[in-house]
Amino acid sequence: MTSPDSPMQLGRPVPVPESPDVAGLDRVPNPHADTDYVARFTCPEFTSLCPVTGQPDFAHLVIDYVPDQWLVESKSLKLFLASFRNHAAFHEDCTVAIGRRLASRLQPRWLRIGGYWYPRGGIPIDVFWQTGMAPAGLWIPDQGVAPYRGRG
Amino acid sequence: MTSPDSPMQLGRPVPVPESPDVAGLDRVPNPHADTDYVARFTCPEFTSLCPVTGQPDFAHLVIDYVPDQWLVESKSLKLFLASFRNHAAFHEDCTVAIGRRLASRLQPRWLRIGGYWYPRGGIPIDVFWQTGMAPAGLWIPDQGVAPYRGRG
Amino acid sequence: MTSPDSPMQLGRPVPVPESPDVAGLDRVPNPHADTDYVARFTCPEFTSLCPVTGQPDFAHLVIDYVPDQWLVESKSLKLFLASFRNHAAFHEDCTVAIGRRLASRLQPRWLRIGGYWYPRGGIPIDVFWQTGMAPAGLWIPDQGVAPYRGRG
Amino acid sequence: MTSPDSPMQLGRPVPVPESPDVAGLDRVPNPHADTDYVARFTCPEFTSLCPVTGQPDFAHLVIDYVPDQWLVESKSLKLFLASFRNHAAFHEDCTVAIGRRLASRLQPRWLRIGGYWYPRGGIPIDVFWQTGMAPAGLWIPDQGVAPYRGRG
Amino acid sequence: MTSPDSPMQLGRPVPVPESPDVAGLDRVPNPHADTDYVARFTCPEFTSLCPVTGQPDFAHLVIDYVPDQWLVESKSLKLFLASFRNHAAFHEDCTVAIGRRLASRLQPRWLRIGGYWYPRGGIPIDVFWQTGMAPAGLWIPDQGVAPYRGRG
Amino acid sequence: MTSPDSPMQLGRPVPVPESPDVAGLDRVPNPHADTDYVARFTCPEFTSLCPVTGQPDFAHLVIDYVPDQWLVESKSLKLFLASFRNHAAFHEDCTVAIGRRLASRLQPRWLRIGGYWYPRGGIPIDVFWQTGMAPAGLWIPDQGVAPYRGRG
Amino acid sequence: MTSPDSPMQLGRPVPVPESPDVAGLDRVPNPHADTDYVARFTCPEFTSLCPVTGQPDFAHLVIDYVPDQWLVESKSLKLFLASFRNHAAFHEDCTVAIGRRLASRLQPRWLRIGGYWYPRGGIPIDVFWQTGMAPAGLWIPDQGVAPYRGRG
Amino acid sequence: MTSPDSPMQLGRPVPVPESPDVAGLDRVPNPHADTDYVARFTCPEFTSLCPVTGQPDFAHLVIDYVPDQWLVESKSLKLFLASFRNHAAFHEDCTVAIGRRLASRLQPRWLRIGGYWYPRGGIPIDVFWQTGMAPAGLWIPDQGVAPYRGRG
Amino acid sequence: MTSPDSPMQLGRPVPVPESPDVAGLDRVPNPHADTDYVARFTCPEFTSLCPVTGQPDFAHLVIDYVPDQWLVESKSLKLFLASFRNHAAFHEDCTVAIGRRLASRLQPRWLRIGGYWYPRGGIPIDVFWQTGMAPAGLWIPDQGVAPYRGRG
Amino acid sequence: MTSPDSPMQLGRPVPVPESPDVAGLDRVPNPHADTDYVARFTCPEFTSLCPVTGQPDFAHLVIDYVPDQWLVESKSLKLFLASFRNHAAFHEDCTVAIGRRLASRLQPRWLRIGGYWYPRGGIPIDVFWQTGMAPAGLWIPDQGVAPYRGRG
Ligand SMILES: [Ca+2]
Ligand SMILES: [Ca+2]
Ligand SMILES: [Ca+2]
Ligand SMILES: [Ca+2]
Ligand SMILES: [Ca+2]
Ligand SMILES: [Ca+2]
Ligand SMILES: [Ca+2]
Ligand SMILES: [Ca+2]
Ligand SMILES: [Ca+2]
Ligand SMILES: [Ca+2]
Ligand SMILES: [Ca+2]
Ligand SMILES: [Ca+2]
Ligand SMILES: [Ca+2]
Ligand SMILES: [Ca+2]
Ligand SMILES: [Ca+2]
Ligand SMILES: [Ca+2]
Repeated sequence: MTSPDSPMQLGRPVPVPESPDVAGLDRVPNPHADTDYVARFTCPEFTSLCPVTGQPDFAHLVIDYVPDQWLVESKSLKLFLASFRNHAAFHEDCTVAIGRRLASRLQPRWLRIGGYWYPRGGIPIDVFWQTGMAPAGLWIPDQGVAPYRGRG
Repeated sequence: MTSPDSPMQLGRPVPVPESPDVAGLDRVPNPHADTDYVARFTCPEFTSLCPVTGQPDFAHLVIDYVPDQWLVESKSLKLFLASFRNHAAFHEDCTVAIGRRLASRLQPRWLRIGGYWYPRGGIPIDVFWQTGMAPAGLWIPDQGVAPYRGRG
Repeated sequence: MTSPDSPMQLGRPVPVPESPDVAGLDRVPNPHADTDYVARFTCPEFTSLCPVTGQPDFAHLVIDYVPDQWLVESKSLKLFLASFRNHAAFHEDCTVAIGRRLASRLQPRWLRIGGYWYPRGGIPIDVFWQTGMAPAGLWIPDQGVAPYRGRG
Repeated sequence: MTSPDSPMQLGRPVPVPESPDVAGLDRVPNPHADTDYVARFTCPEFTSLCPVTGQPDFAHLVIDYVPDQWLVESKSLKLFLASFRNHAAFHEDCTVAIGRRLASRLQPRWLRIGGYWYPRGGIPIDVFWQTGMAPAGLWIPDQGVAPYRGRG
Repeated sequence: MTSPDSPMQLGRPVPVPESPDVAGLDRVPNPHADTDYVARFTCPEFTSLCPVTGQPDFAHLVIDYVPDQWLVESKSLKLFLASFRNHAAFHEDCTVAIGRRLASRLQPRWLRIGGYWYPRGGIPIDVFWQTGMAPAGLWIPDQGVAPYRGRG
Repeated sequence: MTSPDSPMQLGRPVPVPESPDVAGLDRVPNPHADTDYVARFTCPEFTSLCPVTGQPDFAHLVIDYVPDQWLVESKSLKLFLASFRNHAAFHEDCTVAIGRRLASRLQPRWLRIGGYWYPRGGIPIDVFWQTGMAPAGLWIPDQGVAPYRGRG
Repeated sequence: MTSPDSPMQLGRPVPVPESPDVAGLDRVPNPHADTDYVARFTCPEFTSLCPVTGQPDFAHLVIDYVPDQWLVESKSLKLFLASFRNHAAFHEDCTVAIGRRLASRLQPRWLRIGGYWYPRGGIPIDVFWQTGMAPAGLWIPDQGVAPYRGRG
Repeated sequence: MTSPDSPMQLGRPVPVPESPDVAGLDRVPNPHADTDYVARFTCPEFTSLCPVTGQPDFAHLVIDYVPDQWLVESKSLKLFLASFRNHAAFHEDCTVAIGRRLASRLQPRWLRIGGYWYPRGGIPIDVFWQTGMAPAGLWIPDQGVAPYRGRG
Repeated sequence: MTSPDSPMQLGRPVPVPESPDVAGLDRVPNPHADTDYVARFTCPEFTSLCPVTGQPDFAHLVIDYVPDQWLVESKSLKLFLASFRNHAAFHEDCTVAIGRRLASRLQPRWLRIGGYWYPRGGIPIDVFWQTGMAPAGLWIPDQGVAPYRGRG
Repeated sequence: MTSPDSPMQLGRPVPVPESPDVAGLDRVPNPHADTDYVARFTCPEFTSLCPVTGQPDFAHLVIDYVPDQWLVESKSLKLFLASFRNHAAFHEDCTVAIGRRLASRLQPRWLRIGGYWYPRGGIPIDVFWQTGMAPAGLWIPDQGVAPYRGRG
């Protein structure tokens, strides 16, 4: 993993990291640290591997957070998420682990992640995690992802 | 299978037939046989079994036809479709076979069936069959079933 | 039925007719009889009775026509449709009969009716009838009624 | 009505005309008169009066045309449509008359108008008129206006 | 029913159990038991039998829970739900019983189930049950299943 | 009205009652009376008469309740609602009266009714009534009926 | 303005009032004054004039209220809203003024109005006003009007 | 920046300001300052520049506020937003800065802004800021902007 | 690539092939080869690599074909598509190549593929290829994939 | 304008061109020139200036073409479209001119462009142009852009 002192990945060519462990999450100072606001990232392009079969899994991820001193640098976020391409983990574990890694690196006032996984065996799983109760006086729209409907 | 001379299933209690082979399809005279029109049945409650694994499969079926001398009696249609509950067949085969059985029994001027199957392995299959070119001067709206979209 | 010479129902109080047979369909001259155009009526408030059980049936009806010398007067159309409230007929018969009655009274260049019936036994029926091929050079958008989807 | 020689209404203050008869429809040269294309105007703000009751009527109008030598100047189109605010006419008549007035003034290669009227008595009327068969090799998407659905 | 000590059903061929009573619900340790999160399963492929008529019933089910020490193993959940295929129960009873069986086996911090049943007699029933007030600081999006709308 | 001791209407032929006053509402014991849950009935097929004009009115009704000792028997609910077919009442009155009749008969822990009426004069009315604050720890999804949008 | 003692406008022909000032708002006794419920009126046919340019403005209005002793008579509400046709006012002012006029006349337990105005200069304005906190134990679905989306 | 004493931009031609710094935000007295209400502006036409690459960025903005003594004059709001056309700022910064500028100029009782940015690198960002907890007794519908869904 | 004589991949564990070149496409006899019908596969889980940057690309694919002697075996189709995970190709090339590979292996009467790619640089690309004019008398619903809309 | 011999803009930093006249459109060889297929670009981020007022205009553009020897290089397409940022042209002219410039540079077998402009004065304009009749045997889904609906 990139240490806090590694050079930023923005502004230079960086290949997709080989695993989440070696992927860095760069952070930049929050220009509005004196107020609370929510930043939402929508990542419809997530893929990882099934730890049992090795087959690819897919998910649509939505991340909301309230920055404190740091914003996540978005190129590094994209590369971090892409680094799961050859990583094997169950849906519940993978979603919560991404949320916790971000929370650990950014030390936000609050963070949540929704993982909306493509169906396997006809039954999709969604995972919803947050760091705890959101700060008072905050505005957090719901993520509004369409529920799975099968056919018809 | 009910022969053409069997008593109608309408108006008396009839259990779900044990298989499509023994299910009857009753027919009643078309009251407007001197003109062409389309009747559409939408059956979102279809289920059969996978011939390989024995696991249940599900589909949303839509049937359009132009009656000639006969209308299908709708209670018998419902029982016929329910009779696939313990029947094993592949998606392509099952859909086309239902269409052909109806065409054979009703001798319609035209008939089509759309089978919209629930996903297996992440990839759903749809099957579209018709008896041939529709008669000229006919109005046949498209079935408009929502395409499968996965998640997000 | 109101004869062609009956006074118009527009502009005076008229109760709902007791049956389609005694309901009049008033007509007024087409102010643009020198050109072809389509008029569409959408009737989401249709109800009749089941001829077998006597229970109420419901439908959403859409009627398209190309007037020749006559337009249907819309108050009389509303009363005519309301007159089916205590009338018993099968879905296919009822829909086509309404279309034919209108075609007979208005003598339009072309007419079609779509009947979208509420489900009975889980399987709704739609009925689509038209007088024949539409005149060339006409613009007729599809009726675009949402397909039945069950649940989910 | 503004004669062809009247000064353009664009670029100077113009009040809403008191009636369609006195409203001008300005036209400007078509910069691409050597090719066929469709221009579509969507007018969700149309209102006129009912000729029987004097109550206001409302419609959503969509106009498609293939210009020949002239484009309609859009400010004048807006004022022309607004001039129906105190004009009384039946839905069928009003829609077709607007189409014909535009066709007469612009002399387009082809023109159509769809009038989608708000319901009266529970049953809305739509009116679809065009000048005739569209020129070959033209691309005209359907207007795609959502059908009326009542409630639920 | 599989006892807690039965071998897992994952990773070996298992036929659909003949009834819910003999179906096992396997559980695996929660890898994030030190934090609260919601897992949602969407099951659009549920079918059981009507206890009065023996006819098939269909439902779209959505289950949300907050795991404590255990996650449900998803293959066993799928088989458990499929085991209702020949089970007869009323809609209210069936939905709540599934929720209670899961709650009993998983001992979650919180669980709810929504059962969205296909219409019978024109009137569908939905059933909403939960184990009680959700833990504070939890994020639980609504299930967002489209309401039944009949036709039109 | 059927007295509490009348035989159940389920399992025998029953015609549509002539008025709400003579319609019975059968009840059956709640199999899960030791827990709170919501049952929702969606009735898109409601019709009554306007007390001023005698013309038919239509509504889409949604009823949510938390049963205590009794569940409503659904065939009797369907017949009760159908009994309004020749009953005259204003929208506000009719909707609240249905809710109160159900609450009186079922003695539920909580009940609400939403009446979504088809437009008259261009302006539809919706009516929302409930017996009071819902019990704590209950999950009640919103009814999510699409708002009226006129045209366009 | 019609005084409280003026004869009702219902049941006799009444032209559209020339301005809101002279329009009466009739009221009738609330048949369920011993309980709280919400009545919602949806008015997609509102139009007024811009006080600066004199051009027509359009809005979609939704009004929710909890009646106390009085219900608004709906024909008079329709005429009152139609009386703004030649009235000039800014969007914010017009919306709040309608809400206040209704609140003053009906003395409801609570009332709110949402005004969803058509775009001018590409940026539409919505206005949301209510008389204050709604009474406890009330059920008030959100108005659910689709947000403006421009194109695409 | 226009000082509070500058002449209003309404009613005279004003070019798009060259930057937010020199753009004025005109304000007019609130005609209903004795009550709380929300005004919402929807701005689907926002564009600025990326501070790193100089490439154009696009956003859909929605602003809600509760006026105190002042309303924003909408022509000046439009010009202010258009003044970002050649301004370079990150998404989080730009959105919050617009909200703060408006809050500073209008001194509203409450204000929030939602910025829904078009995707870059496949992952769009949304930003949600408000001045703090909204006043009690206020009605603030959610903004309801459709979540980003990628494709399919 | 698996030769036509390789053993089927169905019914035995098969890892994701390392590239499309070594992936086999198994085929099974068409049980209804004496009639024309369409089979549609929807694959929302496609991913490949950008040949310029090495970054992952994503697409939603829909394949329609009319089988002649052969059906594609669906497990092998899934594995074939998954084999592009580490394959680099431009969008146009990749989509058409998949279509051609399927056409070559299955020798269908007709085949088409739609590739709906996730946006890069704000502008997504769709690719539509087919083997030629579809056989007469065939029913091929449009794929109905939602167009890309950016935000708002 | 970049001449055909200019170096490609791909793979090196290129600022947004100052006008369409100086923007280059790079082309690369079509890898499937021996077959017909459609490539679609969706550009929801288009902006130009109004030639009368100098105010910004916005559009959602969709371009379909059948390549012959050349594909458009997508980075250069993005820069070309961005070069209209300070260019002034009427909607009809601008849309058709973009289509013609692409057709001239790419010499495709067929090309069309749809321009969906944001409303001005309440009435949006759409423009649809194509080079002529599409080649036979081609599959061209409609662009399916949602029609403008105003509010409600
Ligand atoms: Ca929400
Ligand atoms: Ca379904
Ligand atoms: Ca269609
Ligand atoms: Ca269409
Ligand atoms: Ca279309
Ligand atoms: Ca279409
Ligand atoms: Ca309906
Ligand atoms: Ca929600
Ligand atoms: Ca909700
Ligand atoms: Ca809601
Ligand atoms: Ca947009
Ligand atoms: Ca809401
Ligand atoms: Ca997707
Ligand atoms: Ca279609
Ligand atoms: Ca289409
Ligand atoms: Ca509208």
